[in-house]
Amino acid sequence: MRISRSTGLRAIPAWLLVAVAALSTPLPASQSSSWLDAYRDPAARLIAESLSSAFAWERLAFLGDTFGHRLSGSEGLEHAIEWALAEMKNDGLDNVRAEPVKVPHWVRGQESAEITFPHRSPLAMLGLGNSVGTPAGGIEAEVLVVRSFAELDASGDRARGRIVLLNVPFTTYGETVQYRTAGPSRAAALGARAMLIRAVGPPGLRTPHTGALRYAEGTPQIPAAAISVEDAERLQRMQNRGTKVRVRLEMEARFLPDADSANVIGEIRGRERPDEVVVVGGHFDSWDVGTGSTDDGGGCIVTWEALRLMKKLNLRPRRTVRLVLFTNEENGLAGGRAYLDRYRSQLGHHVLMLESDSGVFRPTGFGFSGSASARETILQIASLLRGIQADRIGPSGGGADIGPSVEAGQLPAMSLEVEGNYFLIHHTQADTVDKIDPADMAKASAAIAVMAYVVADMPERLK
Amino acid sequence: MRISRSTGLRAIPAWLLVAVAALSTPLPASQSSSWLDAYRDPAARLIAESLSSAFAWERLAFLGDTFGHRLSGSEGLEHAIEWALAEMKNDGLDNVRAEPVKVPHWVRGQESAEITFPHRSPLAMLGLGNSVGTPAGGIEAEVLVVRSFAELDASGDRARGRIVLLNVPFTTYGETVQYRTAGPSRAAALGARAMLIRAVGPPGLRTPHTGALRYAEGTPQIPAAAISVEDAERLQRMQNRGTKVRVRLEMEARFLPDADSANVIGEIRGRERPDEVVVVGGHFDSWDVGTGSTDDGGGCIVTWEALRLMKKLNLRPRRTVRLVLFTNEENGLAGGRAYLDRYRSQLGHHVLMLESDSGVFRPTGFGFSGSASARETILQIASLLRGIQADRIGPSGGGADIGPSVEAGQLPAMSLEVEGNYFLIHHTQADTVDKIDPADMAKASAAIAVMAYVVADMPERLK
Repeated sequence: MRISRSTGLRAIPAWLLVAVAALSTPLPASQSSSWLDAYRDPAARLIAESLSSAFAWERLAFLGDTFGHRLSGSEGLEHAIEWALAEMKNDGLDNVRAEPVKVPHWVRGQESAEITFPHRSPLAMLGLGNSVGTPAGGIEAEVLVVRSFAELDASGDRARGRIVLLNVPFTTYGETVQYRTAGPSRAAALGARAMLIRAVGPPGLRTPHTGALRYAEGTPQIPAAAISVEDAERLQRMQNRGTKVRVRLEMEARFLPDADSANVIGEIRGRERPDEVVVVGGHFDSWDVGTGSTDDGGGCIVTWEALRLMKKLNLRPRRTVRLVLFTNEENGLAGGRAYLDRYRSQLGHHVLMLESDSGVFRPTGFGFSGSASARETILQIASLLRGIQADRIGPSGGGADIGPSVEAGQLPAMSLEVEGNYFLIHHTQADTVDKIDPADMAKASAAIAVMAYVVADMPERLK
Repeated sequence: MRISRSTGLRAIPAWLLVAVAALSTPLPASQSSSWLDAYRDPAARLIAESLSSAFAWERLAFLGDTFGHRLSGSEGLEHAIEWALAEMKNDGLDNVRAEPVKVPHWVRGQESAEITFPHRSPLAMLGLGNSVGTPAGGIEAEVLVVRSFAELDASGDRARGRIVLLNVPFTTYGETVQYRTAGPSRAAALGARAMLIRAVGPPGLRTPHTGALRYAEGTPQIPAAAISVEDAERLQRMQNRGTKVRVRLEMEARFLPDADSANVIGEIRGRERPDEVVVVGGHFDSWDVGTGSTDDGGGCIVTWEALRLMKKLNLRPRRTVRLVLFTNEENGLAGGRAYLDRYRSQLGHHVLMLESDSGVFRPTGFGFSGSASARETILQIASLLRGIQADRIGPSGGGADIGPSVEAGQLPAMSLEVEGNYFLIHHTQADTVDKIDPADMAKASAAIAVMAYVVADMPERLK
């Protein structure tokens, strides 16, 4: 019996999950704990090999240091893709290839925001991804600060002709990010000329966070930018004092014609059932600030490591393990969709898809979405990771890039789970490799290698 | 007996201080603890009044929010000075006045730094204060990274024609700042075309720190900028890998003709000996990043509060308490020198000078430089601050702005001492009011008010 979808598990009542677990038939012999014994040695070797060096961190550092950011359409991304292809071949991976994908090509250009009244003072800002630009010379208008969509909607005609600032304190990403994605069109619908948003993240050091917006059909497309928490609170205080603050926003942001990019793929070809595939990966593109080391360079490198470690230890599983470095997660998801388009007919042979895209801080285990019996198997495999404290299996797994395929194929899905201050640096200038501990990367690589290897090798397919 | 100078106390052996304390004659009646009893009530009232509101924090927020930064020569500083004069009059202070001071007028202009080889990638940078600019189009050169002056000097001819990066990890400000002040000329002497310095502060969020450089006589003046810790380590790693990294630095920095500014002064005029003066203050100028809220807006406001609180409670001490908001501490010290020039003949009537310029985080007490008997008195007064845990008296006190007068007059000197992460935000974009706790400001204001009031009022002059 298969229960869950990556997007659906949260909706199933806990009592039902318990009931299903209680009703499930006894595990077959191959699924009882004893089958796991054959994997204790390879798991220990994968872990020891990973923990023996800082190879993953060094590779991630090289990637960010050398190529900088990797926004879709940028030279940095395409140079990095060429490098990754060469490196995967150097690692001895099988079937290394780039699978072409057309991607949106948004460019930021020059941008700035400043208070112009009562006294000129710059704001720390980052335009939102996919935003339109302003006319040359910018947009200057009085600011209306609101704390919520409710306050915005209640402002009646006061948003008209204004620059609206959505000053919403960060709670969780899922809850707060809606103001970034939907805010510009909500403000435009009320006649705002531009939108500013308090950065979606906890307070930093005057650190704006970029990220994609999504214009709604039928409302004017207005320019939109994030400003730092400090600047948002400053504008709030000024409004609270009755000061009629004016701000000038200037952005050259625009789309160029779609660009050529690619998903980068390498494999450990299965020795017995090569058509059955365990996919691991992350997204290779990033925002155009910082070097995209946690989002999601680290996820790419630690999933890549899983294959490199198997190769290094000459561990070739029964089934194929496929690494996919997806392109264009941040502002389009073209890579994830292209994978589905290309492999739709083969999804029945996809045993599991695993993505790492929550940063590579201290790994605690994985989130998993799949059947109750598959969960039982995954829990058993995870026990091999107890020594590195990465054996927790959370209630749901998935990822943006694997999402289209997981949904289309109703596939079991996993995500690496970590503990760390991901959202402090997410989509900021500060997303650089120094925020990541080499030991955490080694542990994460080991955890993914063990999980992927055992799922790919175990006698019975995960189901 | 007067022992110490603000600059000299550290040089006196500890055994001598102990010996002096042991040999000193018994305190006169007015200096024994019982004299202090008369001040328990006013001290309690000053503390209670200060802690009853967030007035200090709100005033500091208004200052930074409204006027932005206050670099010497900027409109922000001069508008803020006009506001301060009006506010001091509103507070009912005596003899409110601006004392004109000519100040250097350095402007940053547009500036940027980027890696140009192996791949283009921007660096997070801030030009150093008082730096010359680059030629239009910038300076592009290969980078030489060194970890110390010793490594720089040992580099022989390899600095010639290069951009030198001094990548020195932060230890203490006193120890590390020398690389910022002296580094540009040390690099220029070896033929470097420009200098970059790892930001003088602990790691932040890709947060460069500006601050003044000091060109040496007889060496070419080359442009110099700080880059973030992350960027410095990136360039270090690239050099360690053998990559010949090229960087382009472009800065429009230049001096304009000296500008008009002023020290802002207000007083509580003494009721019996008005010519004897206790000076309290901070510096009102700031760097041109952030809003200069901790450096040193907060110091200005909490010393100002000392007078406002006395006025509010109708506490007029025997001697005069004088508030001085000095101009141009950051890149010239013209305000501190102008004060000395104007009051040189009256230094003999200066009882104490107290500066707050280490941020207004949790106050722990004061540093004090002065005679052993004065220290004994100060310790007794500090006991009135035990209730707010601000009663520690450290071994030396002083401040940049009061420095010239303290030295010329051999005056007792104090500084507010606090516990907080001052150097994380010092001279950065993140120096904004939200980093300061209103309760800490209230406590600091109370501590300064009590100290200044008692020293100004006690029957015998501090000596």
